[in-house]
Amino acid sequence: MGWAEGFIAVDWGTTNRRAYLIGPGGERQGEMEDELGILSVTKGGFGPAVAALTERLGDRPLLMAGMIGSNRGWVETPYVPCPAGAAELAAGIHWVEAGRIGIVPGLCWSQGDEADVMRGEEAQIVGAVESAMVPPDSIVCHPGTHNKWVRLEAGRIAAFRTVMTGEIFNLLKSHSILTDLLAAEVRPDSAFEAGVRHGFERDDLTAELFSVRARTLLGKSAREEAACYTSGLLIGADLRFGLGFAGEGALFVMGRPELTGLYAAALAVAGRAAREIDGEEAFVAGAIHLAELVR
Amino acid sequence: MGWAEGFIAVDWGTTNRRAYLIGPGGERQGEMEDELGILSVTKGGFGPAVAALTERLGDRPLLMAGMIGSNRGWVETPYVPCPAGAAELAAGIHWVEAGRIGIVPGLCWSQGDEADVMRGEEAQIVGAVESAMVPPDSIVCHPGTHNKWVRLEAGRIAAFRTVMTGEIFNLLKSHSILTDLLAAEVRPDSAFEAGVRHGFERDDLTAELFSVRARTLLGKSAREEAACYTSGLLIGADLRFGLGFAGEGALFVMGRPELTGLYAAALAVAGRAAREIDGEEAFVAGAIHLAELVR
Repeated sequence: MGWAEGFIAVDWGTTNRRAYLIGPGGERQGEMEDELGILSVTKGGFGPAVAALTERLGDRPLLMAGMIGSNRGWVETPYVPCPAGAAELAAGIHWVEAGRIGIVPGLCWSQGDEADVMRGEEAQIVGAVESAMVPPDSIVCHPGTHNKWVRLEAGRIAAFRTVMTGEIFNLLKSHSILTDLLAAEVRPDSAFEAGVRHGFERDDLTAELFSVRARTLLGKSAREEAACYTSGLLIGADLRFGLGFAGEGALFVMGRPELTGLYAAALAVAGRAAREIDGEEAFVAGAIHLAELVR
Repeated sequence: MGWAEGFIAVDWGTTNRRAYLIGPGGERQGEMEDELGILSVTKGGFGPAVAALTERLGDRPLLMAGMIGSNRGWVETPYVPCPAGAAELAAGIHWVEAGRIGIVPGLCWSQGDEADVMRGEEAQIVGAVESAMVPPDSIVCHPGTHNKWVRLEAGRIAAFRTVMTGEIFNLLKSHSILTDLLAAEVRPDSAFEAGVRHGFERDDLTAELFSVRARTLLGKSAREEAACYTSGLLIGADLRFGLGFAGEGALFVMGRPELTGLYAAALAVAGRAAREIDGEEAFVAGAIHLAELVR
């Protein structure tokens, strides 16, 4: 069957994948999620892994985005340079099977010594712009393992920078001297806000991280507060950098709701209002728009 | 045998221990090192672990410093508050066996919301002061898993702060998206110096860490440079914080020679001269001085 019957949109990441069956009118007719991220698939295993998707969701064309196009994915799909919007992304799609199985490219940006890359968020951001969830000139903060600060100009991604906030927190939580302090779930409570304030106002991240442990050992702060404070601290430092990079403008936080909630709370501490956008909805919108451009 | 025949000084850390047989005149008569750090010893195993030392080096009194006095060590020995020098450390020694097996306490410091702790470095620093390796008013930078910035005033440790530089580098090297880039041995080469300059001058550590990967992916910098650059970046940020904390004054870098060499090179990039002090020599000097105070 061709695109007229709809298609399957796949957000294929490092550790999991989500697939959506999109009907002819753009309606979501089905979806599935599993842990078959690219790191769980061998080089020759992507064909069968895709066949499992069409078997489950239906025999439709596929449009895939995310790490599936990285050097560890199915076919390395070259980064498209900024500024780039839906048209540039559509033109950069790599067709594994002509007109039938496409991989959306990632984006790259550089200026002088600075350089950055993105894979996956671009489909969401373009979807949010094209479906008017965010205005064509705005700032998007996209938290995840790696938080992205994105400047949108005239509906295209003009520039972006990545901050390793989520990954650093996970490393500290899993493998560091702070591990026994960071097990608690992170909530935007007063300890989180205190961390945000410190991280946003002060430039001493790698020192303050050790203070988290020292204050607990000396009985100057409660063990239970360490996880929220540390998350806040890292996000506060992230905002100091990101707001400096992104500048003024309407601000949107896009991604998984539990993360956009934390960042929105942190932005409020930093004195900036932000609207939250569900990343999944934005992704589906982006896939539908890209499909319209290439079908 | 008593202290008149000499003693055994033990620097007992998290992952290894070093022991020195010190003769009556302060001469090193023997030494041993093994990987029996505190994490490798069960709670009831410290007695036998010490017996193995005296069996090897001789039946002498023992003076031990480092993580052996932590809450994961043999007996938790309370931190002594700053300012503290040799006299305060000697007074804080916990005697597991009276006058025979002593654990040197760590130090703590706090001011307002800031707090810090140290275990192990204090014995080296006091040794360096008492044996005139460093003047009584000076600044000591003590790199390791956790780098310590120490202000010495009138021969005592007045204040100090810890920066998690070494641990963060190790986490990135072992478990992160940068792992495949950070395998090379770190040397103070031009990539290292470029990293130091960036880290020292700019406040964007968690963003610049991702740029290391992005620049490599985009062919804007060589893979071989990533380890040295990243180490330099973290050390540069460490210096920006530490020199701000420590202020002006004669500067000494103490610890393992491969680390003091890197920090001295980084300090030169930051425009500060520093003399390197061998941490092992300083430790032995500290143990000898403390033994004289308590024997």
